[in-house]
Amino acid sequence: MKVDGRWRRALERTDDGAAIVVLDQVTLPFAVSWLRLDDLAAVERAIRDMHVRGAPLIGVAAAWGVALGLRAGVGLDEIEWRLAATRPTAVNLRWALDRMRAALTADGAAPDADRAAAAAAAIADDEVARCEAIGDHGLALIERAAGPDATRPIQILTHCNAGWLATVDWGTALAPIYKAHERGLPVHVWVDETRPRNQGLLTAWELAAHGVAHTVVADNAGGHLMQRGQVDLCIVGTDRTTRDGDVCNKIGTYLKALAARDNDVPFYVAAPSPSIDWRARAADIPIEERSADELRWITAADGARVQVMPPASAVANPAFDVTPRRLVTAIITERGVVAPADLATLFPELAA
Amino acid sequence: MKVDGRWRRALERTDDGAAIVVLDQVTLPFAVSWLRLDDLAAVERAIRDMHVRGAPLIGVAAAWGVALGLRAGVGLDEIEWRLAATRPTAVNLRWALDRMRAALTADGAAPDADRAAAAAAAIADDEVARCEAIGDHGLALIERAAGPDATRPIQILTHCNAGWLATVDWGTALAPIYKAHERGLPVHVWVDETRPRNQGLLTAWELAAHGVAHTVVADNAGGHLMQRGQVDLCIVGTDRTTRDGDVCNKIGTYLKALAARDNDVPFYVAAPSPSIDWRARAADIPIEERSADELRWITAADGARVQVMPPASAVANPAFDVTPRRLVTAIITERGVVAPADLATLFPELAA
Repeated sequence: MKVDGRWRRALERTDDGAAIVVLDQVTLPFAVSWLRLDDLAAVERAIRDMHVRGAPLIGVAAAWGVALGLRAGVGLDEIEWRLAATRPTAVNLRWALDRMRAALTADGAAPDADRAAAAAAAIADDEVARCEAIGDHGLALIERAAGPDATRPIQILTHCNAGWLATVDWGTALAPIYKAHERGLPVHVWVDETRPRNQGLLTAWELAAHGVAHTVVADNAGGHLMQRGQVDLCIVGTDRTTRDGDVCNKIGTYLKALAARDNDVPFYVAAPSPSIDWRARAADIPIEERSADELRWITAADGARVQVMPPASAVANPAFDVTPRRLVTAIITERGVVAPADLATLFPELAA
Repeated sequence: MKVDGRWRRALERTDDGAAIVVLDQVTLPFAVSWLRLDDLAAVERAIRDMHVRGAPLIGVAAAWGVALGLRAGVGLDEIEWRLAATRPTAVNLRWALDRMRAALTADGAAPDADRAAAAAAAIADDEVARCEAIGDHGLALIERAAGPDATRPIQILTHCNAGWLATVDWGTALAPIYKAHERGLPVHVWVDETRPRNQGLLTAWELAAHGVAHTVVADNAGGHLMQRGQVDLCIVGTDRTTRDGDVCNKIGTYLKALAARDNDVPFYVAAPSPSIDWRARAADIPIEERSADELRWITAADGARVQVMPPASAVANPAFDVTPRRLVTAIITERGVVAPADLATLFPELAA
């Protein structure tokens, strides 16, 4: 999507092919800067420290990490091990590594850096195409919520950032919103702040860059907005969805799903197929416990890191929760919209 | 409760009787400072800017505001009008003003500053007695949750600050926790950060000062903790409870009540009788929309105010929500524990 009026992707290959550049999501939303990642270690760091974040984008970055690692002579096994360790919850990461290995070893030849670069580029293009398809399928849900009177703004609540920043382009949860905006539908997005890392501000930043009307609220506010009839539908992304349709996503998603059910608000999850873990059950999903410093410190608009919690108190920081499928109205995939329990019917070749 | 080892109240009269001092809740939890309030305008400012906060403490502060206003020759009508305007949602404020007027005008004499001071002191003492009674009644609920094996920590989740800071002494939601701690029961408190004003840090501060084990979490985390069986019960305070048992409290309370129901976790509300509005229905309660700056800016540990949101995005800040009584297991009052719908049976003389 657009940054400073130019159409960009959140991850691009440099012209010389020797590196990738990524939009730094740590300095956003206050400063727009691009990070050049020259080698495997830089990719690892960028994923682990969330300069690159969002399940699909992490997968693409990892794919490029394979290419950069091979170029430097690192063995494929070591590359995979190092990249897989950066973010334990992200299923796309594992998926991208598996796809890279398949592409690199299909004909029995030794893994090759040029071929890896081509495979990584193909993964990125596929990611964008999937997101755009999710946008088209989700658009129909928004049009339905709008009804015949499309002058009233359609109110959509989202949590965290599942936009183009997280997915190379278009986004998952935000793709239908961008499509609706392009179609001329009047949408307004309630953006959860999404403590502790405040990824909602990334969502606000990308929506502002595209002129999509939106309002940031504290994570605590969404239930009240739904009680007051100010939310027509919710759309969120997912880090990992089980074949049963249980949704692991940013911590707090479950609370919004509960409020949506309590107020008869449709709750949609945008899930590209690589984020579906066909083998996992909800109870098996490891929940990443991240550093307490994510709550203790906050980045100010001027880039300063400031402490906002008394050091004497303990802090816990579970980063994800699991929304059971009974709370999910439908899942939006690149192949269409489906009831959570019926995911496998859309992807028989993956579910088998 | 204790501050720096000394037993204090959150609001005290100065020795010369010419002013009150309050523990400044804006500089807490990072700095402990006491504000001297010499006149009505200072009390108005302290309530409006939340140096004094918490429904019961606001009521007591307003009562002292009446006394200080009368001492300076301000008319009772003007005093009431000015104080009532400082926080529209707080029913205790209105209640305290009504009680002051009754005490001052009962015998037909003109309102008198000395008599007002005595009445304000009596309101404060009554508040403390009510809180301690809530603590005793709530203790029984915690003992029940503990079961016969009281070595395992009893896990209690709370939202916002309904501690002694908010109520002169003991607190409402925290009073049972302090009582359990004094009884030697092993309690551990999950403290919601409570964005946007982060009053959870006040809760953490008071618990730390008393040696009560606790952990601060993002507001998003409570649902996940309950799913994982890490919460035995929830106790929250209330700014205004209807006679039907619907509970208006800090924004986000409703989301935790939904999660509690979904996971069969008891959800208790500590409500001293002055916080019960016998005439209101849930739909009538005005929800205070507070300044967007509460989200846009945050106070760092060093006292600096830093901006944490991009100015280009709109921000909304509804400060309260209403938890319907169907989600409330029971209400803890100074007269005992009761089902939400049965509040009136405990207070027939008020409910009539």
